[in-house]
Amino acid sequence: MPIAQIFLLEGRTESQKCAVIQQVTEALVDALQVTQESVRVLIQEVPNANWGIAGQSAKDRAGSPR
Amino acid sequence: MPIAQIFLLEGRTESQKCAVIQQVTEALVDALQVTQESVRVLIQEVPNANWGIAGQSAKDRAGSPR
Amino acid sequence: MPIAQIFLLEGRTESQKCAVIQQVTEALVDALQVTQESVRVLIQEVPNANWGIAGQSAKDRAGSPR
Amino acid sequence: MPIAQIFLLEGRTESQKCAVIQQVTEALVDALQVTQESVRVLIQEVPNANWGIAGQSAKDRAGSPR
Amino acid sequence: MPIAQIFLLEGRTESQKCAVIQQVTEALVDALQVTQESVRVLIQEVPNANWGIAGQSAKDRAGSPR
Amino acid sequence: MPIAQIFLLEGRTESQKCAVIQQVTEALVDALQVTQESVRVLIQEVPNANWGIAGQSAKDRAGSPR
Repeated sequence: MPIAQIFLLEGRTESQKCAVIQQVTEALVDALQVTQESVRVLIQEVPNANWGIAGQSAKDRAGSPR
Repeated sequence: MPIAQIFLLEGRTESQKCAVIQQVTEALVDALQVTQESVRVLIQEVPNANWGIAGQSAKDRAGSPR
Repeated sequence: MPIAQIFLLEGRTESQKCAVIQQVTEALVDALQVTQESVRVLIQEVPNANWGIAGQSAKDRAGSPR
Repeated sequence: MPIAQIFLLEGRTESQKCAVIQQVTEALVDALQVTQESVRVLIQEVPNANWGIAGQSAKDRAGSPR
Repeated sequence: MPIAQIFLLEGRTESQKCAVIQQVTEALVDALQVTQESVRVLIQEVPNANWGIAGQSAKDRAGSPR
Repeated sequence: MPIAQIFLLEGRTESQKCAVIQQVTEALVDALQVTQESVRVLIQEVPNANWGIAGQSAKDRAGSPR
C-alpha cells in the first residue's frame, strides 16, 4: 500500500497528470510486487513563484528546466 | 506539539473542514495527553484529477468512494 | 479516502501510537462521513534534536511541552 | 541537496515569498556547507480555513498571529 | 524538476528501493518529458506500528497487504 | 506560525542540525515578520540509499554533492 506524493510545477495538462498517476503506479507495482489497487498517488502542483531553485523562484529564473 | 497534515479530496464544505480540525485535535489531545493549544492541523485539499487510486485519477474512476 | 500524516516527538509508547491511529481515524470517519476502511494514518516520529521550536531544538529547550 | 517545504498561511506577497526562498536557501547553505545550486525550497500556501490551531481554524480564531 | 516522496512500509530490500528510485524516475521522465537529471525521489520507510489502515496499525492487522 | 520541513541526507552532526533550526527560523522571522516563537522546523534525515537523484540512490552515485 505505497503512497506517492509528487511535487510538480503548476501548468501540466490533465493528460500529463493522468500519465504521472498511471506510470508512477505501474513503477511501484513492478518494483515492489504490490497490487495496483493498493497504490495511491497524490500530485501537488506548485506555482512557479513558490518553487525555489538556488535561492530564486522558478518564475524569476530564466530558462530554468521544468 | 503534534502536527497533523490531512490530505482530502477537494470539495468538502467549510463546516466539514472545521469538524476535521476540531475532531482530529481532540483525538490527538486524548491519545497523547497534550494540550489542545499545542496541536496544529493542516488540511491539504487535492483536486480529483490529482488523486490517483489504482493507476487512475479519482476524476476518471467512476463510483470511487471519497 | 483521507490520508493523515501525523508528526510526533519520538518516544511515545506503542499503545499511544495505536490510540493515535484509532482516534484520528474515527475523527475523520465522523467529520467526513467516509468509511473506516478508506482512512490511512501515517505516524512520523521526529527525534527531539530534529524538532525546532522558536529556533531551538526540543532537546535543548528545557521544560518544553511535548 | 537539501529540500525545504515551507507551510505558510495564504496571503503573503510575492516579494515576501521571494524573501523566504532566498533567505531559507542561504540559511541551509550556511548551516550545511552545501552549494546554493543544490537547494530546493517549496512554499505551500494554506488557506486560513484549512490551518487549525488548538482545534479552531485560523479563520475563526480572532487575533491569531500569522 | 519533479520531486517524489514515496511512503513505504519498512522492510523492503535495498534492491527493491533501488528499483523504486529507478522506475519512478523513469515514469516521471516519460510522463512529463523532463530530464532524468532533474528528478528527485525520497523514500520514507514507515514502521508497521506507525501505518494505520482502517483504524488499526499494519502490525496489528493480520494478513494486510503491503 | 510557519512550519518548515527540511529533508537532509542522513549524517549531519547535531551542531549542524542546531544551525539548520536556528538559521531557518531566523530566515522565516526576517522574511515574514513573524515572531520567533511561532516558527516550527522539522528535520527529516533521509538515508543515502533512500534518496534518488537522476534515477540512482545517493549511495550508488559516486561523488554526488550532499
